[in-house]
Amino acid sequence: MRQSISDFLDRPSTRNTIMGVILFNAVLLGLETSGRVMETAGTLVTALDTACLAFFVAEILAKLYARGLRFFRNAWNVFDLLVVGIAVVPAAGALSVLRALRILRLLRVISVAPTLRRVVEGFISALPGMASVFLLMGVIFYIAAVISTKLFAATFPDWFGSLGASLYTLFQVMTLESWSMGIVRPVMEVHPGAWLFFVPFILITTFAVVNLVVGLIVNSMQDAHAEESNAATDTYRDEVIRRLAAIEERLKERG
Amino acid sequence: MRQSISDFLDRPSTRNTIMGVILFNAVLLGLETSGRVMETAGTLVTALDTACLAFFVAEILAKLYARGLRFFRNAWNVFDLLVVGIAVVPAAGALSVLRALRILRLLRVISVAPTLRRVVEGFISALPGMASVFLLMGVIFYIAAVISTKLFAATFPDWFGSLGASLYTLFQVMTLESWSMGIVRPVMEVHPGAWLFFVPFILITTFAVVNLVVGLIVNSMQDAHAEESNAATDTYRDEVIRRLAAIEERLKERG
Amino acid sequence: MRQSISDFLDRPSTRNTIMGVILFNAVLLGLETSGRVMETAGTLVTALDTACLAFFVAEILAKLYARGLRFFRNAWNVFDLLVVGIAVVPAAGALSVLRALRILRLLRVISVAPTLRRVVEGFISALPGMASVFLLMGVIFYIAAVISTKLFAATFPDWFGSLGASLYTLFQVMTLESWSMGIVRPVMEVHPGAWLFFVPFILITTFAVVNLVVGLIVNSMQDAHAEESNAATDTYRDEVIRRLAAIEERLKERG
Amino acid sequence: MRQSISDFLDRPSTRNTIMGVILFNAVLLGLETSGRVMETAGTLVTALDTACLAFFVAEILAKLYARGLRFFRNAWNVFDLLVVGIAVVPAAGALSVLRALRILRLLRVISVAPTLRRVVEGFISALPGMASVFLLMGVIFYIAAVISTKLFAATFPDWFGSLGASLYTLFQVMTLESWSMGIVRPVMEVHPGAWLFFVPFILITTFAVVNLVVGLIVNSMQDAHAEESNAATDTYRDEVIRRLAAIEERLKERG
Repeated sequence: MRQSISDFLDRPSTRNTIMGVILFNAVLLGLETSGRVMETAGTLVTALDTACLAFFVAEILAKLYARGLRFFRNAWNVFDLLVVGIAVVPAAGALSVLRALRILRLLRVISVAPTLRRVVEGFISALPGMASVFLLMGVIFYIAAVISTKLFAATFPDWFGSLGASLYTLFQVMTLESWSMGIVRPVMEVHPGAWLFFVPFILITTFAVVNLVVGLIVNSMQDAHAEESNAATDTYRDEVIRRLAAIEERLKERG
Repeated sequence: MRQSISDFLDRPSTRNTIMGVILFNAVLLGLETSGRVMETAGTLVTALDTACLAFFVAEILAKLYARGLRFFRNAWNVFDLLVVGIAVVPAAGALSVLRALRILRLLRVISVAPTLRRVVEGFISALPGMASVFLLMGVIFYIAAVISTKLFAATFPDWFGSLGASLYTLFQVMTLESWSMGIVRPVMEVHPGAWLFFVPFILITTFAVVNLVVGLIVNSMQDAHAEESNAATDTYRDEVIRRLAAIEERLKERG
Repeated sequence: MRQSISDFLDRPSTRNTIMGVILFNAVLLGLETSGRVMETAGTLVTALDTACLAFFVAEILAKLYARGLRFFRNAWNVFDLLVVGIAVVPAAGALSVLRALRILRLLRVISVAPTLRRVVEGFISALPGMASVFLLMGVIFYIAAVISTKLFAATFPDWFGSLGASLYTLFQVMTLESWSMGIVRPVMEVHPGAWLFFVPFILITTFAVVNLVVGLIVNSMQDAHAEESNAATDTYRDEVIRRLAAIEERLKERG
Repeated sequence: MRQSISDFLDRPSTRNTIMGVILFNAVLLGLETSGRVMETAGTLVTALDTACLAFFVAEILAKLYARGLRFFRNAWNVFDLLVVGIAVVPAAGALSVLRALRILRLLRVISVAPTLRRVVEGFISALPGMASVFLLMGVIFYIAAVISTKLFAATFPDWFGSLGASLYTLFQVMTLESWSMGIVRPVMEVHPGAWLFFVPFILITTFAVVNLVVGLIVNSMQDAHAEESNAATDTYRDEVIRRLAAIEERLKERG
């Protein structure tokens, strides 16, 4: 029984059906955002949406039954469980934010399509190599947030009123969005030396971001390098060593 | 007859003439934007522009006749047909937008100049390798647009009133243009938790864009690598293997 | 005595304790920014903060005693001395800015954690290679600041009133923040040719920054290359040469 | 005579003196921007500045005499002649803009310092490889400027009133500065379909810029690669081939 369900779920046609339902659901969720559509065909759209959700729940339950605890060994299964779970929970509650998160179930398109899966896996595999730089940026942001809150909280409470507000403003400054005309020039009218804080902050964080990107490039290049060129080189090197050994052997025999 | 027309079109002097007409037409179309020029010499400019257009139509018809159906095998011929075709169509209609598109015929400068052609071909050849990341970004944008429309359509109809408006606003946010002072700060005054949506959106899409660029770099590097270094390496390796084989052979003979 | 203090400071458990105190101090300094916390538990927080500071001073004095003058050979020790020193000085004075800098002592988290230390060392080691481009950018900025001050000081004193103001504005322009809508368009209303100064300035400085990043990438790549692939290649090459020499030797012997 | 002047100019001490005068002149020109300094010591600063200029003129005349027509073979000499020439010309006229350009003579710091010279030469040597992409961007900009002038000149004369205004606005849009909140959103209020022009324009030009940077990286990498690794590899390969040939020779002899 378990085996046959498992086989059924692994069939390409099943996978294609699931993909079809996800895409159909995507269209439905898009239609739900249109007031005009919801006025004329709201009940139908909602009903079809619930049907799609029921389909996803059924699929996950089937997979859970078929795989048992092995289900949780594959991170993508856990991912599916979560994004579908979010869609089920708010149906009980009434939090409008959680209702908006129901759309996250469209992310299943990633776990179903192998190409997208590989892209996301590639992204995630790049994260550990960036961990130490992220940590450093965390330290810099925290320190900069404490300093800017101490210095500017009294005069600019909207931007630096609390640690959280400062962190958000510093993130904005790091992205260079309106950092000067929007933030630093007004601040400098009250604290003329504020550029001594912000300009180094921009230089340091930008430099850290550049280093993150450089690290990504070097790593990708090395992976690509290792994969590709070594196959031909290894075959060649093995042959050279083998032939040299054979010549030596032959000379020794005669020695 | 067909052959002689084909030969005539392939001559460097013909190609140079075509390039000359395109550049002359570019100047004319530039002059057309100046109100003063059009007042004093409007009829002349329009007449010369029509002459250029007639020249392009004649050239394409000649090429069509000379090449027959093989004309459509070369994508650049189809490109020429389209950009000249757009210029002919609106002459019949009266849509002002289409009239502006007549200028696209200057894009023929690309199909005529081999250097520009190669650059564009290089750009296009890079696209398939980026397809999966583009697909992923499409998924992320669609989901983010549905979520932001659901959450902010009622309070910020200008920015998030429909799926289309949300997609445009999210594109703006991704380019980091006024994302905070222009969009997120006003939104946060009504929905204080809005940064929980926008900051991760920025981090994820920026990271995806960075990965696109990294992919481009790695691919270009591998192409450059494969082209260049392998020629010398292959010659050397072949020689080493050949000489080793010769030594072995000689030793065997004497065996 | 010195030796035993030195051993004690090098113990992993000591290092972990220091790290713990730094993190605890980070929380305290974060709490200090909250008005509500300071009202209810201000005395406690300040007392604990002073205790942390005393701990840092004690640790550095112990290290100074244990290492003697060798203390100053390690740049990280000097760094620790400076960031803790800043925290001690303003306790005497009353400059509010210096008080905000007391938070810099959290930077000790970098000197204590080896991973962060290595990241920062990597950053710093990249700087000398960028020195000449930085120098060039300094020259360009100085010349551009003198020119823009001469041209626009009279009409736009806020942005170009002095060399310092011009340098700041040009830095803003280089980061592309509001360069057109915020600065150049208003300037062009008075000086219509101002784009002749600003557009080349943007192109040149952006190109210099791009070259800095390209230099960083090439250097990192070479370092990674040199480290990794050469080990295997060197072993292989040595073996080939050794075997060839052995064959020659054997043939010579018999010669 | 000529030879002794030439030798004198090539001496390190002469070069250092010139560098010193340039730096001293840089300080003077900086002081000239300060109103307070000019009030108290204006005559002195102007006199010293004229002295510096006289020094530069004398140096260039000496070089011209010593080198004769060979002077013009070195591009840096021509560069020196130009930037000093600009400083001499406006002393006759009264154009305030040209007077600001006198500061360009500080650019001589680049031609005197070998490090800066090499950086600039590196920048310039990268330009030819980018020529075709620049040409393509020129074509795209021209076509986009003609289209946007035709479409938006009547409604937004400040931004798109003429070809020049459109080119400037499109350059601003390409740098992503206020492209949406500042330009495209206001335009879309009159022409709702304007994003169909601007979003593809941004995507295409940004992609072209990214390709420029990718090209720069690949070229720098190849140069670095070619310089460095080939030396060791070539020595090794020569040795392998030499030894193989020697073995073959020895075997043949005995044949």
